[in-house]
Amino acid sequence: MSDNRPANLEICFSPALYSAINTQMPFSVVVVDILRATTAMCSALSKGLKEIIPVASLDEARAMKAQGYLVAAEREGDILDFADYGNSPLDYQHIDLAGKTLVYSTTNGTQAIKLAENAEEVLLGAYVNLDVLVQYLLSQQKDLVILCSGWKDQFSLEDAVFAGALAARLLEGGNYVSRCDSVAAALGLWQQAAPDLLNYHHKASHTHRLKEIGQDASIPFCFQLNACEVVPGLVDGRIVDVTGDR
Amino acid sequence: MSDNRPANLEICFSPALYSAINTQMPFSVVVVDILRATTAMCSALSKGLKEIIPVASLDEARAMKAQGYLVAAEREGDILDFADYGNSPLDYQHIDLAGKTLVYSTTNGTQAIKLAENAEEVLLGAYVNLDVLVQYLLSQQKDLVILCSGWKDQFSLEDAVFAGALAARLLEGGNYVSRCDSVAAALGLWQQAAPDLLNYHHKASHTHRLKEIGQDASIPFCFQLNACEVVPGLVDGRIVDVTGDR
Repeated sequence: MSDNRPANLEICFSPALYSAINTQMPFSVVVVDILRATTAMCSALSKGLKEIIPVASLDEARAMKAQGYLVAAEREGDILDFADYGNSPLDYQHIDLAGKTLVYSTTNGTQAIKLAENAEEVLLGAYVNLDVLVQYLLSQQKDLVILCSGWKDQFSLEDAVFAGALAARLLEGGNYVSRCDSVAAALGLWQQAAPDLLNYHHKASHTHRLKEIGQDASIPFCFQLNACEVVPGLVDGRIVDVTGDR
Repeated sequence: MSDNRPANLEICFSPALYSAINTQMPFSVVVVDILRATTAMCSALSKGLKEIIPVASLDEARAMKAQGYLVAAEREGDILDFADYGNSPLDYQHIDLAGKTLVYSTTNGTQAIKLAENAEEVLLGAYVNLDVLVQYLLSQQKDLVILCSGWKDQFSLEDAVFAGALAARLLEGGNYVSRCDSVAAALGLWQQAAPDLLNYHHKASHTHRLKEIGQDASIPFCFQLNACEVVPGLVDGRIVDVTGDR
């Protein structure tokens, strides 16, 4: 920041609240979809994937599959029949993705990324890249909105708690400030969840949804700290690791 | 409930999230605007006011003032020049309101009431009527949405914490159940706030807003439990005490 003032921090608990945010452009956005889009995208990029093309509609994803792209596509947690992958971060742990491009469409995460695309910078956050994301944000110190993807425009506990974890780290050094009620609430939730993150989230409705469809094996990975040394960011409509050449 | 199943409970943290709620009609709604509309309306009805006509627009409020109505009208916390009262619950403590009708228009509260008006029943909740409201709801045991008025469609800490207080009381006996993430979050916030409600809310942005405009004298009353023995509810477009003939 040229004037060296602390950057302003806001949290949006749902894409439906994004148009009501109380901060002036320009600002950066960190999109959060802990279960599981932003976790999975961190996972894929950390395994050498070159880039992700986020698409909101399934028609687009299907058309790009027909053009020969690798496609990850999920709705309601389930992989779609035409897709190569669903939304599990574990899908990317044991395959060779080096240099490849992946088209990605999910219930909530890719919609939130699209919503934010006019921001100064759009980054993706998850527990798996928390510390490296914090370092990147502190080096920039730009006004920031943490945008929780939620579930079909509803509040999601796991995204809100992560927003609190990220906010706590940004605020502690004084480089960021906030008078946003969402930040105060998220900090409180993070304080309650932090001592036992995985157990705390047994009450999150999306962990139940994933269990019901047999996708719960991926849940522990989604709450694992710093497993992926990447900061995914939107550049010319594609998600790449913006710290790529370290 | 004819089938005696527990009633479903949801919380909406903002009017902007109301259309995304995940419960089937019919359901009742408790509208919450702790600072200060629902608190003030409880206060006025408890002092003998016959009814409140909520109107969303200031033009309507102004026109009804010209017709001779008593009018409470506020924007951003300040009383408007044409109005008899603003939005402070203290306004109604020492005047004779018996049998009168009051037209009411506020920044957030009356907008939320209007939004909910197609629900099975619309009630108003605040700390000042918490216990009597809980008794009323438990006697009905209908599916329920607690609708936080928020601040210009943003999340408000004081409304979310109150939603947690109300949810805790409804859930404890097993007559209500919830798998809503907003409920889980609100319960956590209430747990943190309950030991010292007034001090906890020093971090709420609207307490700062009220201080800046010299309206903070009304804040302690807004966190006072059970000062008003009324359950305001919408009947034919007017808010009356639905427990009126006890």
